[in-house]
This record gives sequence, structure tokens and C-alpha cells, in this order.
Amino acid sequence: MTYCVGLLLKEGMVLLSDTRTNAGLDNISCYKKMYTFEDPGERSIVILTAGSLSVTQTTMARLQEAIDDAEATEETSILKARTMLKVADIVGAHLAEVASDITMKLVRNSQATASATLILGGQRKGGAMRLFLIYPEGNYIEATPDTPFLQVGEHKYGKPILDRVVTPDTSLTDARKAALLSMDSTLRSNLSVGMPLDLAVIREGECRIHEQRRIEYGDPVFAEMSQAWSAALRDAFTQIRI
Amino acid sequence: MTYCVGLLLKEGMVLLSDTRTNAGLDNISCYKKMYTFEDPGERSIVILTAGSLSVTQTTMARLQEAIDDAEATEETSILKARTMLKVADIVGAHLAEVASDITMKLVRNSQATASATLILGGQRKGGAMRLFLIYPEGNYIEATPDTPFLQVGEHKYGKPILDRVVTPDTSLTDARKAALLSMDSTLRSNLSVGMPLDLAVIREGECRIHEQRRIEYGDPVFAEMSQAWSAALRDAFTQIRI
Repeated sequence: MTYCVGLLLKEGMVLLSDTRTNAGLDNISCYKKMYTFEDPGERSIVILTAGSLSVTQTTMARLQEAIDDAEATEETSILKARTMLKVADIVGAHLAEVASDITMKLVRNSQATASATLILGGQRKGGAMRLFLIYPEGNYIEATPDTPFLQVGEHKYGKPILDRVVTPDTSLTDARKAALLSMDSTLRSNLSVGMPLDLAVIREGECRIHEQRRIEYGDPVFAEMSQAWSAALRDAFTQIRI
Repeated sequence: MTYCVGLLLKEGMVLLSDTRTNAGLDNISCYKKMYTFEDPGERSIVILTAGSLSVTQTTMARLQEAIDDAEATEETSILKARTMLKVADIVGAHLAEVASDITMKLVRNSQATASATLILGGQRKGGAMRLFLIYPEGNYIEATPDTPFLQVGEHKYGKPILDRVVTPDTSLTDARKAALLSMDSTLRSNLSVGMPLDLAVIREGECRIHEQRRIEYGDPVFAEMSQAWSAALRDAFTQIRI
């Protein structure tokens, strides 16, 4: 499985993904699930992927091919599309087509199907930041001030902390922390989500990726945060009276 | 949906269930999911139910009928069975049979099936406390010192807190608090789990239900705990540096 989360704040966006991929429990690998597309200062786009690896890799490869195509237009390239809504349309169309192609191959020999779900966040110069969750069929929903975060994959373990602390007014620093703690709870309770992590932060209006980094297994800062959070939870637990 | 959790500690057992039942989102009702069977001082048994209401109610009714039967034996009555393992067998057999009967009725007219999953905890005089999770097919697993709690229903939201604080050495007071906080996280993040709650506490060796109470919607003690926990989490969140 997977856990990816995107947060849309007034100050910017935080996107976080794990890297564990498994085909059964005995075949575990590490694959990046975060893809970034950038024309610095003009637009920045981050996509997080959950689902069948063959679907997500092929979808991302086709998006990149369309960008690199010498005849790329605003109808085909997510770096040229006029709006983030159009970007979501292009991504959704590729996703649905790839999933459909692969499923057709699979059903010839088995009852298997393949699909994926994506989180898409980004901003183009002159437009608002937007954060979408794109369903396997290519349709999508969008984060709003009422629900300023979107999750895909193993979303339940890490939802309570987000529900409690994230609003559109949350600072980027706090949102980054909330995303990491949400991931920490998921890592701790579900083996199918694993380190390393990929983190991206976009500041409102910059149209470039402000911070992008991989948090490796054993990263001392993340480990310290995780231990501090455990200790803080246990302290809080001790102090509660009922 | 449902959330039920049972904890097996050296000091005793804590069992907690919600009461929300829904047939679709527009048909929500309140049904007790905790059933207690007791011969005080001799044995106490608590069953928590998740799944199709028609399966769980009929299963519980058949268990009660078997207890009330003038010809009840240690093979048929969970209040006479020689061991808790035998109790689990009897409960599992009824559960699987009822689910099978009801599914046969359903498939005549639709593709629907019906099933349920149970948590069973209890102790008979002279035996150890035991806590089981009984699957729809009637087979079961048992809590051990490595994994001293079992959950059914919407278990993911409330697992991180249990993973962090519950061990077999946890006191009954702390286990009760952990179960309530685990439920609180679930209530907060998932509408299909709802108040009131049913709580039961069994002390090791007593073979009677030490505490059994319903926590109603708006219960001031629970509300205070919930608010204190939210505040403590937010404080802990503020203090974490990353």
C-alpha cells in the first residue's frame, strides 16, 4: 500500500509520500511516488501516486513525453495548460486511459484489474494554488477551506491528527509537521507503508518548489520527532483524567 | 459501521463498543453491540459485535436460548462450557450457522451476503482470562502478551494510540482510558461510528463484571476527556520541533 497526503494552506502547500511498494507481502520494494514538474517562477506541479505501479509509472511517463514533445500544446502538456483545472483534466485523462489499457491486458489472462489514485497540487503564475485528488476513472475532487487536506492510500491512521490541527490558516511549518506526524502514525501502525519519505513544500505565489527532500530511514531529525511525539503522547495520556 | 475494542491486561479486561448501526447513510439507528453473560463469581463473558445486525442479533438470541434451555449442557451453553476455548467454539459455531442461513435467504433474491465479526472476552473460575476475535466463518484468534488488544470494525483511526500505550502491564485505569481515547479518535474521524458507548471492565479472578456502563451522548466526563485530549494533542504538537 501507500500513504500520501497533500495540505492546502493560505501560505502554501505541503505534499508528502512514502515509498513502499509491494506485490504480496513477500515482494517489497522502494519506489518514489512523488513526481515534480516545474517551470520555476512560472509554475510548479507535484503529483503523488497510489495504486498499481505499472499504471502510475506509465501515466507519469506519458505526462513527461507530452511535455517533451516538440509539438506540445496547452491541450497536451501540463507545463503549458492554461489552468490547474486543465492540468487535472490532462492528468486524469492519461490516468484513466493507462488504467484501461493495462486492465484490458490483465483481463485476457486473469480477473485482475489495475488502477491508481493521484494527488495533484500546484500553481501557475497568476492563478491560485490548487490541490486535487484524481480518481482512477479520471474525475477529481478538490481541497477547499472546509477540507484543506487530501489523502490517498492508507489514510485512516493518520487522519485524526490532521482533523485536529490542520486549517487553512495553519502555517507551512506546522503543516509540514502535521503531515510528518500523520505519516509517523501510519508508519507505526501499518507495515505496508514505509520509509524513506518524499516531502515537497510550495510557497504561495512562488511557482517553484520551495523545499524538496527525501527523508531516509534512520534520518535523525525524523527519528527525534517521532520519539518526541511518542513521548508527548504518553505524557498527554498520563495527564488525562477519566 | 462499528468500532469495538477489547484489551487483555494482567489486571483484567476492558471492552468498549459504540452503538451506531446504519443501512445506508440515510438510515442510522442506535443498537447495543455489547452483550454480557454472567454467573457472578463463577464466570463472566462479554461479547462485542460488528457486522450485519440480523446476524449479530440472531446469534446472540440463539446463545441466550441455549443458556435458558432446561436441557442445557456444557456442549451447548456458554455459561456451562468447561473452558473459554469451548465458549469461543460455541459462539463461533452459532455465528457461522446464522450467517450462512441468512446469506442463503439473501442470495435467493439478490447478490447480497451477511456476516459478522465478534470480540469475545471472559473468564471462568479456575481458568485464565481470554480474549478472542471470532471471524465470520467461526474460526478465531486470541489476544496474547505480544498483541494485548483486539479490534473489530473501523479499527484504523484508533490503533495508533493503542499501539503506543497498551502493554499487558498497563493498569486497568490506563487501559480504560486508552480504550476511550481510541474510541474518541474514531468518533471524531468517522461518522459511521457514534455515541452512546458501552463499556465493561472485568478484574482478573473476580469472574464478574466489575463495571458496566453506558456513556451517553454529551456525557460530561467523556466530553471533558475528549476536550482535554484534543488540547493535550495540540500542546504536544506545538512543542514538537522539526
